[in-house]
Amino acid sequence: MGTLRVPVVVPSPDQDCERLKKAFDGWGTDEAAIIWVLGHRNASQRRIIRDRYQQLYNESLIDSLYSELSGDYRKAVILWTQDPPERDAKLAKDELKTKKEGVKHLKVIVEIACASSPHHLMAVRQAYCSLFDCSLEEDIVSTVSPPLRKLLLGLVSSYRYDKELVDNMIAKSEAATLHEAIKTKQLDHDQVVWILSTRNVFQLRATFDYYKLHYGKPIDKDIMSCGKGDLESLLKMVIWCIHFPEKHFAEVIRDSIMGLGTDEDSLTRAIVTRAEIDTMKIRGEYNMMYNDSLDNAVTGDTSGDYRNFLMTLLGAKI
Amino acid sequence: MGTLRVPVVVPSPDQDCERLKKAFDGWGTDEAAIIWVLGHRNASQRRIIRDRYQQLYNESLIDSLYSELSGDYRKAVILWTQDPPERDAKLAKDELKTKKEGVKHLKVIVEIACASSPHHLMAVRQAYCSLFDCSLEEDIVSTVSPPLRKLLLGLVSSYRYDKELVDNMIAKSEAATLHEAIKTKQLDHDQVVWILSTRNVFQLRATFDYYKLHYGKPIDKDIMSCGKGDLESLLKMVIWCIHFPEKHFAEVIRDSIMGLGTDEDSLTRAIVTRAEIDTMKIRGEYNMMYNDSLDNAVTGDTSGDYRNFLMTLLGAKI
Repeated sequence: MGTLRVPVVVPSPDQDCERLKKAFDGWGTDEAAIIWVLGHRNASQRRIIRDRYQQLYNESLIDSLYSELSGDYRKAVILWTQDPPERDAKLAKDELKTKKEGVKHLKVIVEIACASSPHHLMAVRQAYCSLFDCSLEEDIVSTVSPPLRKLLLGLVSSYRYDKELVDNMIAKSEAATLHEAIKTKQLDHDQVVWILSTRNVFQLRATFDYYKLHYGKPIDKDIMSCGKGDLESLLKMVIWCIHFPEKHFAEVIRDSIMGLGTDEDSLTRAIVTRAEIDTMKIRGEYNMMYNDSLDNAVTGDTSGDYRNFLMTLLGAKI
Repeated sequence: MGTLRVPVVVPSPDQDCERLKKAFDGWGTDEAAIIWVLGHRNASQRRIIRDRYQQLYNESLIDSLYSELSGDYRKAVILWTQDPPERDAKLAKDELKTKKEGVKHLKVIVEIACASSPHHLMAVRQAYCSLFDCSLEEDIVSTVSPPLRKLLLGLVSSYRYDKELVDNMIAKSEAATLHEAIKTKQLDHDQVVWILSTRNVFQLRATFDYYKLHYGKPIDKDIMSCGKGDLESLLKMVIWCIHFPEKHFAEVIRDSIMGLGTDEDSLTRAIVTRAEIDTMKIRGEYNMMYNDSLDNAVTGDTSGDYRNFLMTLLGAKI
């Protein structure tokens, strides 16, 4: 469950657009009004507002937000206002463009492939082609090295069955296959890629549960005992995103505020992309994992309109 | 270009439904009326007729066709009347269910993955999940053996960029990669799978053209010189479906009528699935490849309403 609060009586899209237009007009910008409107509308309402704003004022709402706002606050509001598949396609492109070593920059792609619905993943692939004149898979092949490439390609190409259907015999036999691959350190074996990229998430969770029950340790722990390489880190991330997406995002938020300075991009991404999905669970998990409050963590590391906007998405009354 | 002929002035969906209902009513069935209506409507018109028929008579049009018609004619009309993604999902399931050895039964899946639009392939994967409670990929993993499995999985998972965009440097380097894989008989190398399953078809055609120009022989001929195994046959089929789908379907039709008896299922599939895409080209290619007329071949091997229906889809005036 997300933390986005949509009012019981929602103003008409025209009223919302007028309020936004008024917030942009004249000297300064009425930040509270922007947060009041956009911070309380779900994805389909925001889509209608975007379309209606364009019709009414012959201007793109995203462009207006870009010219009126600034800094991390601007990034967060625009990320929130964009069409979610387009937003994720752009996030994936940005990460692939960096051509960094390691797996940190592949986090977004794993989140899209393993912690989103199959339908959303398909929509992101379509948006990627429309925006960048090539497929997401082509960019992965040209920028990510093996063995990460193989696993990542399998994951982004998946279209998993999306209902809860579990076969315990499959859980048992595929837990054994995964265990054998871990034992023999063949983490990029075709079988591993096929299991992780074709099975539905409920089946995979049952397989991971069986693994823990039968082999004594959680599969992600066993994988990390193979080594601390990139493939191990990627696989651990994949398993968390499938098994406990709330743990993964709690960790993303924690990492973003720990140490010197704040990684605002990661903090924004975690809250914006999950506010309609599972921020309620992320809050609980954050508390369990770090014995600390998510809300305090966010308010402690952010300020001003940026803080107000993130806290609005986290359900606070600003 | 297809050979389907849609009249300039199309009757309303209600008129079409009435005509069909009348054709089913009373003793016998008015086959000519069914062919006259359904054999001259495109996919979106047929969808509207299906929906409207259900609303008007509280009966499924497909079920009515099933109970009124019989034999190969029934199979062909139903295949044509179904929603194309659903139709292809069912064809793929039927072929996978047979668990035959070899690659002949994988033809349908290669056609869907390599000779259809990326959008259609996605729709087939969605329809497959809805109809069969598992993903197409899961069924491929459980029924197709390696090394065919790996290639087939890559192909059905693809979502290729769908506009004409060719990079000659890529054509050159990937032709070299393919040539090296053929030379070393590593036809299921990851690189081969990635090239064939992530590149857009225009790019791949340029790569195959470059291959022929630079290495002296068409790539499919070079592959077949590696051996006559299943992987070679599958790859040749993949390359034809991408490079010359019209050649592939001309061959499917030829094979279906040669020898003792006729393989009506293949003949029907080739004509029904391509009548709105490229049957015009298939006709020309058939002529070139076999020095024979496609229309004569079809009329010579079929009869009655089945022949009339196929010939209607091939643009004949019945």
